[in-house]
Amino acid sequence: MIPCPIVEEHIDTIPESTLKALHALNHFIVERAKTARRFIKRSDHPTPLQEIDIFELNKHDPWEGLNEYLSKNARIQDIGVISEAGCPGIADPGSRVVSWAQEHNVPVIPLVGPSSILLALMGSGFNGQQFTFHGYLPHDKGKLVKKLRWIELDVQKNGSTHIFIETPYRNKSLLTTTCSCLRPGTLLSISIDLTGTDQEVKTLPIKQWIKKDAAFLHKRPAVFCIGR
Amino acid sequence: MIPCPIVEEHIDTIPESTLKALHALNHFIVERAKTARRFIKRSDHPTPLQEIDIFELNKHDPWEGLNEYLSKNARIQDIGVISEAGCPGIADPGSRVVSWAQEHNVPVIPLVGPSSILLALMGSGFNGQQFTFHGYLPHDKGKLVKKLRWIELDVQKNGSTHIFIETPYRNKSLLTTTCSCLRPGTLLSISIDLTGTDQEVKTLPIKQWIKKDAAFLHKRPAVFCIGR
Repeated sequence: MIPCPIVEEHIDTIPESTLKALHALNHFIVERAKTARRFIKRSDHPTPLQEIDIFELNKHDPWEGLNEYLSKNARIQDIGVISEAGCPGIADPGSRVVSWAQEHNVPVIPLVGPSSILLALMGSGFNGQQFTFHGYLPHDKGKLVKKLRWIELDVQKNGSTHIFIETPYRNKSLLTTTCSCLRPGTLLSISIDLTGTDQEVKTLPIKQWIKKDAAFLHKRPAVFCIGR
Repeated sequence: MIPCPIVEEHIDTIPESTLKALHALNHFIVERAKTARRFIKRSDHPTPLQEIDIFELNKHDPWEGLNEYLSKNARIQDIGVISEAGCPGIADPGSRVVSWAQEHNVPVIPLVGPSSILLALMGSGFNGQQFTFHGYLPHDKGKLVKKLRWIELDVQKNGSTHIFIETPYRNKSLLTTTCSCLRPGTLLSISIDLTGTDQEVKTLPIKQWIKKDAAFLHKRPAVFCIGR
């Protein structure tokens, strides 16, 4: 399980131990072949790119062809798994490969690398002893408001931290809805462009987010945390 | 926010970008001074160790003296935060420092490094789109069984992954209780010695864990995941 950079050019966010494992492999199952090839190349992999075997997971059906590929290859050589950005198996289809390996008694080695979920939590100042990652919240306005209010109540009652993401072009609308339905004193942390040169991690009460121009997070990759 | 290795000698699990930030700092707030000094030394920090300023968080009251130290120092120089192992602010008192910084409008920069929680999730093969980290589960047997059964039900109903840890000497007893109260088909993943040379990540149904000798995880740092 080989993490790759969140911001493509920042190869220095990948530890030496992970690069060493990457360079020992010539077979990969990847979320997106194009970005995986660029990462492998940028890492100074010792094997010429055209000799590296890349199996791209089908976007619509990650199982398609996977079982066959794994049955054929997983016992005769080690296979690396690479996500489009960050850690494979977290919020991407890479976990399918791992569950196959675990079922077939093929050893799995998770390697160290960047995760925007964890970076956002570290930067929020919120409780890191208990937290939930929700992925995407519902898009339906009514369901979204219900979920956000449930999260706010759980923060108040149990002190857990709640983390969620959104497609960048919907960030502004998510912030507007969040500000409109939560209490003025509830803390919201927004992390933008994590590991990038324009990275920002800001934790403020809703009453201060309301005054901000939401344009700053338009189309920028963001992670949202609610906690205390 | 400067992650340090989970297994102390494995400095190669820390990315170059994090080491670079570490080497630009001479002031640190740390969970444990002894291990932080060893990490700083092992990283080949350019400043002699005796000239580096280290503030150790009080184990019993992480707020003690912290406010004063931060008020005095945080505006005149950058301060690194180092946990005893892995990422600061996740399951350690480092988040207090961040919440102070966020309140006082001091920029916070989370850096990339190892997290056993995330590595365990990556290696489990379970759903990484939705997961909860619980920290330690209750020690009271009745409450523990209730919590484990609640987790099992949530996995069945919602497909979330649940992650928890235990003090190494209690691992065996946690596994025994887990095996005794969950259904035979429920999947449990145990990760031991993550990033270490004897690392193991194993996902099996309860009915197979029951047959294993629990001695293998005695006094070894472990992360438990239940999911599908």
